[in-house]
This record gives sequence, structure tokens and C-alpha cells, in this order.
Amino acid sequence: MLPVSKDLIDAARGLVPADIVLRNARIFNPFTCTWEEGNLAVKDGRILGIGNYTGKEEQDLAGRYIVPGLIDAHVHIESSLLAPKEYARLVAMHGTTTVIADPHEIANVAGSKGLAFMLTEREGAAVDIRYMLPSCVPATPLDVGGAILEARDLEQFAGQEGVTGLGEMMNFPGVLAGDEEIGRKLALFPIRDGHAPFLSGNDLNAYILAGPDSDHECTNRAEAEEKLKKGMYIYIREGSTEHNIAELIAVVNPLTVSRCCFATDDCHADLLVHEGHIDRCIRTAVACGLAPELAIRMATLSAAERFGLADRGALTPGRRADFCVIDDPRRFEVKQVYRSGREIITGPATTPAPFHTTVQCIPPTIADIRISGAGTTRVIGLVPHQILTESLQVDIADTSIPDFNRDILKIVVCNRYGKNQRAVGLVHGFGFRRGAIACSISHDAHNIVAAGAGDAEICAAIEAVVKAGGAMAAIAGPIATVLPLDCAGLMSTLPYEEVAQRLGQLGEVTRTMGGIDDPFMYLSFLALTVIPALRITDRGVFDVAQFVDVPLFVKK
Amino acid sequence: MLPVSKDLIDAARGLVPADIVLRNARIFNPFTCTWEEGNLAVKDGRILGIGNYTGKEEQDLAGRYIVPGLIDAHVHIESSLLAPKEYARLVAMHGTTTVIADPHEIANVAGSKGLAFMLTEREGAAVDIRYMLPSCVPATPLDVGGAILEARDLEQFAGQEGVTGLGEMMNFPGVLAGDEEIGRKLALFPIRDGHAPFLSGNDLNAYILAGPDSDHECTNRAEAEEKLKKGMYIYIREGSTEHNIAELIAVVNPLTVSRCCFATDDCHADLLVHEGHIDRCIRTAVACGLAPELAIRMATLSAAERFGLADRGALTPGRRADFCVIDDPRRFEVKQVYRSGREIITGPATTPAPFHTTVQCIPPTIADIRISGAGTTRVIGLVPHQILTESLQVDIADTSIPDFNRDILKIVVCNRYGKNQRAVGLVHGFGFRRGAIACSISHDAHNIVAAGAGDAEICAAIEAVVKAGGAMAAIAGPIATVLPLDCAGLMSTLPYEEVAQRLGQLGEVTRTMGGIDDPFMYLSFLALTVIPALRITDRGVFDVAQFVDVPLFVKK
Repeated sequence: MLPVSKDLIDAARGLVPADIVLRNARIFNPFTCTWEEGNLAVKDGRILGIGNYTGKEEQDLAGRYIVPGLIDAHVHIESSLLAPKEYARLVAMHGTTTVIADPHEIANVAGSKGLAFMLTEREGAAVDIRYMLPSCVPATPLDVGGAILEARDLEQFAGQEGVTGLGEMMNFPGVLAGDEEIGRKLALFPIRDGHAPFLSGNDLNAYILAGPDSDHECTNRAEAEEKLKKGMYIYIREGSTEHNIAELIAVVNPLTVSRCCFATDDCHADLLVHEGHIDRCIRTAVACGLAPELAIRMATLSAAERFGLADRGALTPGRRADFCVIDDPRRFEVKQVYRSGREIITGPATTPAPFHTTVQCIPPTIADIRISGAGTTRVIGLVPHQILTESLQVDIADTSIPDFNRDILKIVVCNRYGKNQRAVGLVHGFGFRRGAIACSISHDAHNIVAAGAGDAEICAAIEAVVKAGGAMAAIAGPIATVLPLDCAGLMSTLPYEEVAQRLGQLGEVTRTMGGIDDPFMYLSFLALTVIPALRITDRGVFDVAQFVDVPLFVKK
Repeated sequence: MLPVSKDLIDAARGLVPADIVLRNARIFNPFTCTWEEGNLAVKDGRILGIGNYTGKEEQDLAGRYIVPGLIDAHVHIESSLLAPKEYARLVAMHGTTTVIADPHEIANVAGSKGLAFMLTEREGAAVDIRYMLPSCVPATPLDVGGAILEARDLEQFAGQEGVTGLGEMMNFPGVLAGDEEIGRKLALFPIRDGHAPFLSGNDLNAYILAGPDSDHECTNRAEAEEKLKKGMYIYIREGSTEHNIAELIAVVNPLTVSRCCFATDDCHADLLVHEGHIDRCIRTAVACGLAPELAIRMATLSAAERFGLADRGALTPGRRADFCVIDDPRRFEVKQVYRSGREIITGPATTPAPFHTTVQCIPPTIADIRISGAGTTRVIGLVPHQILTESLQVDIADTSIPDFNRDILKIVVCNRYGKNQRAVGLVHGFGFRRGAIACSISHDAHNIVAAGAGDAEICAAIEAVVKAGGAMAAIAGPIATVLPLDCAGLMSTLPYEEVAQRLGQLGEVTRTMGGIDDPFMYLSFLALTVIPALRITDRGVFDVAQFVDVPLFVKK
């Protein structure tokens, strides 16, 4: 640390003017969860204090409210489909000044190169992006994408500016089995996020003992209470698909609030644009009955303390001047945002540094995705509003696909890492009557996955994805609608406004296809081999219960 | 960090037996401030969890209460008059398992050698002694004792096992003046204790901005509330002479409890033996109306979190098995204490490593302490129950001292660092009719200070102190009663039981001298040049308001 300058001390004493004084504000105090009327003084990007100050620049807030900058305790930036700086430009306008991000997706695609890219992109971003290094790349030995990250790979990033700890340890079976490589990863960092849905009792004790001391996977109150009592920080999640605030907010009270934070985990750009970020979490929590002061405490000091960030989370002397001006604690509309003492004005769109292409794939021809024969086949059954699938068995003939009566369509997975490997399977539940969709996001290996009503459309959609260097593509007519995800096949290099707009267009096109809402969400999870029951990889159909590849035909 | 062993993980899962299981306990949970009925399992000195466990050793607690080991957030061990291991042996029996100690006194006497000694003595101690390095040695440029500790001296201890941060920054005028050497000291450590009595408003903002973020000097509620709101941790102090719980406990509530701790600061061995340590603070707080659960939270998790000690403060999986069994949360009588999973049984008395003698002084003769002449003299006036003094002026003749009618006695300060320098002054307020007392504790330089009714007794008392290599000595007849403080002239090498007994004997002797209660307490502060109004050093009488040495005689 550098000693604090005499100039700053003099300014805090009021002997020399501050840079900025915000007068007549109601300033949130997260230590007492009260509002204090006064003048907030800032200099050199740091809070001088609330008191009797004059500033080179002064602003009369006329009783408006100031809260510390909001903190997202756990997010995968890649899920927004935005590159980090563009993500930052977007969430900053919602009052966020710090995000704790786990670059799990790009790490699965590009390993250490992906991590290095994400660390570079934090420089100059509108909010402070801090990383928890992904602990489970790949998620399972059978789910290898573009990289394997071992403890020794992660170790090279330890201590780097912007690296805060170890990201969500999803491999809880491995933790409980005492896996040595996992132990080495956990021993690298004192701050270790957990991920242990439904884990309880002695096994939860063992998991916590091994190191992880947070969880953002709670879905019911009893689960959150047990984890809280056992010393875990609880990140209450409100993402694009996961909505846990309504159920979990009852665990937050004046005694527990210091151990509870908000997390968005996975949020698409359009949701962030239209509904907000952590400000949305606060509004939702308040709507569910939580006192605004407790919700704001969660979003500020509690998160800062959890990550050992003593320089933020409160507007007390010496901390970063990260804060936002809001209209009212209950409405919580963010009117102005300051980071390090400077007001954030929506800047011009940003472009990430060029990232080497990770989508190396020869698009299949119609012949390549042909199914031959007839008999009983394994069919992946979608479950509405779940990423679980059912394992169905259906009699088909190769000529009967697509089978619109029974809603059985083709699904294709193509390796995107230059291995000319692909597989074809069958899926029930999309309900498409025409067209096809394809995507280079498919957890966790992120191969290209496509499904559709016709072989030609499937091939065309995959080709559109490959051509864009990664994309979400929908075809329901002559022209493909494409959101290019040219950054690692996961994120767009477009401005967030345009990404949100293209997501809207993709939604419009898929709605004309006659199927379910949000088909890309389902599609992107159909290759995830850790979630029951039936999946498909670039090797073929995968039975999760037996944890083995299985043939498409049970019998021909 | 080392990875957690598979053996420990298996034990937490319940696959192999724990070392110890305490059955049918009511276990305190500081996260929720509730009690949980269950079985607490321990292995390898760590908590496995509360759950379904069997142990190699089992104990049925039949509903008794278990709380995490107690933590003292701020203490000067030297004030107990006990060497560190003996201090630890004593406080361990009161449920304390961690103390955060500032070795300010021995540092004033012996500098880095004193710090190194204290660090060595923590090894093998019954409780975990962690040090905050003394930030203000000497307290003022005019108060030099045996050492000066600069930032570069402290830097050598940074990162050493057992060094937690920077101790109380008492020199708040220096902090506010932007003193560069102070800035360098504050920049050495992220955890920095403050000491800022009555500091408020903009100046308090400036002090906090400079680094210190705790305070244990609050004496009124408004002061504590302001400091709490400004982000300071508040250590509520209950020592031998400072009693702040009754006034301050009202600031503790479910929202603020995570930022409030207990501290004893200065406690003599006899008080620790007869009334207790942090257990006494809890009892006192509860008697003042605080819920026992909040008091226990302060004494455990809050203190652990403040010092970044994530391995203790709660009985959750993986933390140190530091805890105590108590009869009842309100009575809070400590029945059993465990540290790192082993029950602490009062062990045999300990002896510190030999410490080089720091008491180098030729005792004065009666001729050496003679006052010559008559006229108006400066007299130090004691103020009952305060360490403040009054600056009096009294006409005397050399032959009239001791003046029992006006209660004016001689006070003598002898340099103990081998400089053959001594000074004689006059003091009002001891009330002695006979005898003398002398002591090698005199804040902060710790020269030998003596006062008494007769020159021969004063000389004999000083001689007894020198002969013992440091001591508290009282003479009211032919034989000196001596508590040897042969460890740096500050601490005894005797067992705590005997130290407490000798303190009792010293009290009996001084009571026969006809004067005030607790005369050693007053005596030990009369050389402290930072507290108004009149003081005495080995150079002579000192006027605090003018901050200069002054002659004894105003006019002869």
C-alpha cells in the first residue's frame, strides 16, 4: 500500500476544498442501515466523508438518495452475450460498479488464453470486473471442450490484479471423494465460491470443510438456512432463467444480512437492458417484502466484505467513491452513477481486443446428418422450464423425421475445435413446424448444436454459425437471422444495444417457427452431460445415469 | 495453504469416526445468533460439523451450552503483570482462546528485541496470542524510553506468523498533520487499530481516511455511534480501570453486532483471577441488558471477522475446534475449554525465556534525592479516579517535606536505561503517612518512579525495584514487599496465582500507609507526558500544556 497523501488528509479535515461535494443528500449507511442527511465530499476518487465541506464542484441533490455502488457477487459475463467492456458499459448504467465474474465459459473454450483475454478486457471497463478463476474446466472428464485447466494453470493467475479467488466448485462429488487435484485448486485461494445444489447434512459439512464457503444454488428456504448456519455466504440469485429471490428472501434479516448478497449468474443482454441488473434484484426483493435498507446492504457492504474488498461497499472516509444517486429507496431507479468519483456517462460502444477464432468446423452437408434405418430410438425429451431432460424411447423410420405429429426433430452437435466429429440425435419438445436454430453456446464444451424441422435448414443454420465465427442463428425462410458471437463463439463484439435488438429479432423468427418460447436456452443445455437424463455430444447420444455414450437406436 | 486431507473429508461425511463427539449439546450459531441442539464432531483439531457422528471419544453434555472460543480484540498483556504464557494459562480458564495483543509496553522498553521476545513466547501458549505491532514507540519525541520503533523496524515483522496488523495509532495529531513516518507505518498493514478519544466530525473523517478503522477509546454513546457509522469497528472496553460497557452497550443491535467486539485493554492479574476476562465482559454486557446471544457474537465471530481470522469465531466445518462449554448463556460460567480440539486443563506454571535485563540503574542515596531551598514549587496534584493531574503551586521549605498536613510528598523518577539521570518532584494526593512505593512500570518510558513519606523509604523502595530487575515494591516497615517484574521490568516470571497473591499483599501494605486506594495505578501514570497537566520525567518536572521541562521551583 501507498501512504495516504497529506493533501487528501487535509481535504478530509476540510482545510482544502474537495473535488466534488454532493449537498443535501440522503446517504445510505450500510453499517446501521439508516439514511443520513448531509453533504458527501469526494477527492481523488475517494470518499472524504459526510460533513462540513466545500468543493471545487458542487451539486445540490435536493434530498435525493445516495447508495454505494452495487456489486454482483457472481456472474458469468459470457452469458450476457456481451464482451466484458460492453457488459460493463451496460450494467454501469444500472448502478453497478463492481462485478465478481467467473469466466467459466471462455475457459472451457480457450483455457488460459481465455482467462488472459478476460483479464485484459477488464482494463478500461466502466465497472471494476474482478474474476474468480473457473475451478471446473472441464465440468467432467467426458465433457472436454477446448481446454483443461489444472491447478498449476490456475496458479499462474493467482495474485494478479483483478483475480479475487476460485470460482464455483461445481464438482461436489469430486470434493467429497477427496480428489487431490480439486484439493490443490482449493488450496490456491482463501476465497472460494461453492456450488452445491441440495447438498445437506454431513455431506454439506464435508464440502464446506474442504473449502468453498458460499453458495448461489439454493432454491428453497430450508436449504439456504442450513447453508447460512454452516457459515456459507448465500448469494441469492435472480438471473434470466433462475428466479430465487421470492423463495429465499425470507432468510435475510438484520442478523444474517451481512452474509447475504445478490447474484445474477446468467443474464442475457436483453434482460439487462429492459429490466436491469442488481437494481432489479433490489426492486424484486423489496417487492417480495424485504426492507429496502437490507436489500441495499446485501448489494453493497455485504458483497464487498465477502470478497475482502475493504475499499468499497460503504461511503465512509477513504473508500472508493463508487456510488449512485437514486430517486427513492423503494422504486430504486438509478439516476446517476459515479465510479472512483467520476460520473459515468454512457460512453460510446466498445470493441474487445481481437480474439483468435475458436470455431473451427466444416459445416455438415445434408448427407452428413442423415439417419439410416428404422427401429426404437432414444429421444431426448425437453422438460418445460427445466434444463433437465427425459430419456424417451420411440419407434421411428429414417423417413419419418421430422415427425410433426409426435414432435420429434433432429438435433445435431458438431465439434468446433477442429476435430471433424459430429453426431445426430432426436429431440422431443421444441415443437417447430418449420426452420432450424443453431448456436455455438452449448454448455460446457460449447460445440455447435442445432435442431430444426428440416435437414437443409439445420445445415444452413450451422453454416451461418461457422461463418460468423460463432453465433446464434435462426432460419425460417430464405435468410438467416444471426447474432454473431465472434468472440470465442460465446460473446458478441457488437454494442449491447444491437445485441439486445438482435436477440429480439431472433425471438421474432423463432416464434414464427411454431415452437416453444426461448428455444436457444433449451438448445444450449442439451449437450451438458452432468444434468439428467439424456444428452447429446459430438460423440453421439449420452446416458447421464450410466454416464456412458449410447447408440441412437436401441434396436433396429 | 495445504489441501484438506481425504481423511478429514471422510470424517466430516461420517464415513470414519471423529476424534471427539460432544453429544446432546446446545451449540451457539453466531451467524443466526441461535442455539442448535445436536452433536458436535471434532477431528485433527478442527470442527467437522454438527450432525450424525460417532467419535473415538464421546461425551454427553446433557443439554449444556457450547460457544466458540472467546476473543479479546485488544489487550496489552504487559498490563496483567504476567508473562505471555502465564497470561494465556490464566485467560484460557475463562474461555478465551485468542487474544489480539499490542506489546506496546515492552516495545517502549526494549524495541524490536521486546517484540521478538513476545513473538517467541506465543509458541506453546495455552491460547493463540496474535500481535498488533505497536505504532507509537515512543508516544512522543519527549517520552523516549528504551527504544524508538520506526516503520522500517516494524516492516521486519510484517508477514511473520502471529503478526496481525498495526496496533493502536495513538498519535492522532500526527495522523491529522499528515506525518510521513506515520503514513509509512499505516501503509505496512491492511489491519490497523485506532485510538482516537473524542475525535469527531471532519477530523475523525481524516483519521479514518488515513487508515485506522477501529476504536476502543469511546466513552460515550454518541461517540461510538459516530465512529460505527463511519466504518470503524468498536471494541467496547472493560478493563481494570476503564469501564465502558454500561455506557456503550446500547449501540449493539442485530445490525451493528458484526462490527462490535470486546476488549480488556489493561487488566491486572488479580482482576483476571477473581472476575474473569472476556467471560466477564459478556456477563457485564448481559447485566446491562444486552441479549446473551449478541454478547457472545461480539466475543466470537465479530472479533474473528475483524481480524480476518476466517478459521475461528464459529463452530462450522473446517474451523478450529476452539470452544467452551458453559452452564447457561446468562450466567456464563465457563466449565470446560477446548483449543484445537483438546481440552485445556490448567497446566503447570510456565516460565518465560530469559530476557536481558532492562533495569540498569544505580539506586539513589538519600543525598541524591534532596531538595534544597525554599519558595514556590510546582506540585503534581492527583485527581481521584483519573490519570489526569492538576498543576498546583505551593510554598515550601526543603525541611518541610514530607508535609503531612498539606499532603505533599516527594516523587522521584530514575532513568532505568543506564543513563545515570534522576529527578525529584512533589506530589499531592497520595495521602501516605508512612512508607514508600516504587515501580518500574511508568508509562510510556517505564523508568523507575517512586513516591513516599520518607526519603529513606523511597530509596529503599527504588533499591528493591532495581535489585529485583524491575518490580512493584512497597515499604512500610523494615521489610519491603515486592512483586518482581523481572521480565523487562514490566512482567513477572512468577505463576499467575502468586502474582495475584503478591498484588493482594502489596494492597495490604499500602493500606497501612494511610493513603489512597490503588496508589501504584496513579504512580505508574505520573511520568506520562501526553496527559494534562503536570508530570515528572527523569529530566524533571514537565508542563504538558507548554510541552516543556520546567523547574521545580517557580521562585526561590
